Amino acid sequence: MKIKPLDDRVLVKPVDPVEKTQSGIYLPDTAKEKSQEGLVIAVGTDEDLQSKIKEGDKVLFTKYGGTEIKIENTDHMILSRSDILAVIEG
Amino acid sequence: MKIKPLDDRVLVKPVDPVEKTQSGIYLPDTAKEKSQEGLVIAVGTDEDLQSKIKEGDKVLFTKYGGTEIKIENTDHMILSRSDILAVIEG
Amino acid sequence: MKIKPLDDRVLVKPVDPVEKTQSGIYLPDTAKEKSQEGLVIAVGTDEDLQSKIKEGDKVLFTKYGGTEIKIENTDHMILSRSDILAVIEG
Amino acid sequence: MKIKPLDDRVLVKPVDPVEKTQSGIYLPDTAKEKSQEGLVIAVGTDEDLQSKIKEGDKVLFTKYGGTEIKIENTDHMILSRSDILAVIEG
Amino acid sequence: MKIKPLDDRVLVKPVDPVEKTQSGIYLPDTAKEKSQEGLVIAVGTDEDLQSKIKEGDKVLFTKYGGTEIKIENTDHMILSRSDILAVIEG
Amino acid sequence: MKIKPLDDRVLVKPVDPVEKTQSGIYLPDTAKEKSQEGLVIAVGTDEDLQSKIKEGDKVLFTKYGGTEIKIENTDHMILSRSDILAVIEG
Amino acid sequence: MKIKPLDDRVLVKPVDPVEKTQSGIYLPDTAKEKSQEGLVIAVGTDEDLQSKIKEGDKVLFTKYGGTEIKIENTDHMILSRSDILAVIEG
Repeated sequence: MKIKPLDDRVLVKPVDPVEKTQSGIYLPDTAKEKSQEGLVIAVGTDEDLQSKIKEGDKVLFTKYGGTEIKIENTDHMILSRSDILAVIEG
Repeated sequence: MKIKPLDDRVLVKPVDPVEKTQSGIYLPDTAKEKSQEGLVIAVGTDEDLQSKIKEGDKVLFTKYGGTEIKIENTDHMILSRSDILAVIEG
Repeated sequence: MKIKPLDDRVLVKPVDPVEKTQSGIYLPDTAKEKSQEGLVIAVGTDEDLQSKIKEGDKVLFTKYGGTEIKIENTDHMILSRSDILAVIEG
Repeated sequence: MKIKPLDDRVLVKPVDPVEKTQSGIYLPDTAKEKSQEGLVIAVGTDEDLQSKIKEGDKVLFTKYGGTEIKIENTDHMILSRSDILAVIEG
Repeated sequence: MKIKPLDDRVLVKPVDPVEKTQSGIYLPDTAKEKSQEGLVIAVGTDEDLQSKIKEGDKVLFTKYGGTEIKIENTDHMILSRSDILAVIEG
Repeated sequence: MKIKPLDDRVLVKPVDPVEKTQSGIYLPDTAKEKSQEGLVIAVGTDEDLQSKIKEGDKVLFTKYGGTEIKIENTDHMILSRSDILAVIEG
Repeated sequence: MKIKPLDDRVLVKPVDPVEKTQSGIYLPDTAKEKSQEGLVIAVGTDEDLQSKIKEGDKVLFTKYGGTEIKIENTDHMILSRSDILAVIEG
């Protein structure tokens, strides 16, 4: 089974806190707008978006917005392009 | 009798919970934005949308938005394109 | 006397409940967004809309929006294109 | 003295209730969105609008919106294009 | 000293009640959206607007919106194009 | 140190009340929308805006909107184009 | 590890108060809309934005909006283009 997001949506698997520490990014609970790291599982049909974000990319996204789903018992998020803040490299 | 959605609307028959377990997707009741699986019965007149979603596709949609109708005693939804999150393959 | 809707408006005569049962569509009172069947009496001046909806079509529309008027003592609705959900064939 | 509406505005003289009965349109007080018949006195400078509505046309407009003015002691309305629902012929 | 409005703004000197009576327009206090007559002192830099409204025109404008300023002790208004309802001729 | 506003922003130094009296403009405290005179220090990168407003121009701006900053102990404002009402000449 | 902002986002490291005094800009706490200086760490994928703002630029941004993140224990902000008020030179 494969999930193909529509238009400018992105399917993301949130990365757990241990991994976050390793990447050196720490997202404070008290931040006025919360964000989180995630792994891109699938990118929507929008071609321009596909040129910017690839499957396997690590992304930083805002926690406000997006839809939570569970795939084979694992939490995932379906986000809109505007929820994606940045791609994390290295 | 056939229902032909206008513009970017999609007619969907929601899939019941048993089928959802089989596909490995589980949609938690507590998710902040609820979603649900459905079977596409008819796609609107918008050509670009028709190139992305076909009759018979399984889709994931957000529960907020859309209009409930009963066709021959079965629950259906008429959704806008923006309510469709992803196409589920396999 | 003839009413010619402007731009993307559509003049519709709502269809009564008996006819709804015959077409196999039943619109529950408890649905979060109510819809209703109607007969298209006149389509607005918008050419693109005229290629999608014709006089005599049966349409499904959302009850939110539109303006109620009585023509020769019969209830009618003037709807915007965005209030029309689908065309019902057969 | 002549009033020339700007852009997509339309100057309308509302038609009194007696005339409304004659045209067969009755606008219920209880309708959720109120409308009213009127006579077009002048059409705005927008060319596309001028091809759709002429001086002397009878129009149906929504009562929400528009600005009331009195010209030589008679009530008039200056409406935006979006307040005009339909042209009434015959 | 000269004031040149920017973009689609218009500088207007409101006309006092006596003049209003002469032009035959009376603007009721109880109108749901208030309007007022004024004399155009300067038109903004927008070329399309300059083709529609000239210095010296009498205009009808809605009282909601606009910024009050005093020039050499006289009340003036700086209005946006959307605040101008009509040009009054003759 | 030089501040270069981005896009359609304008850096303005508000002019004090004495200067305002000299120019003949008086901005009443009771006006429903407050405005103020200022001197343009720098215009944003937007080319169309640069053709309308120059460094050294005196402008009238609405007090709602804009961001206050102090440069070398003097109050300044960074305004958006839509906050600028007019250029004052002479 | 490198953070590459998406679209029109900008990654900024806020500059501390000492540096602010040196540049001659002082941002009052009581200002109705708060702003702050920062150092641009990375500019989003939008080409037009890249022609206006470079890595290493000092920028003035509004404090409302943006997402706080910590990178290697240092506070950073991911801002939208509309949050950037100006580039500070020299």
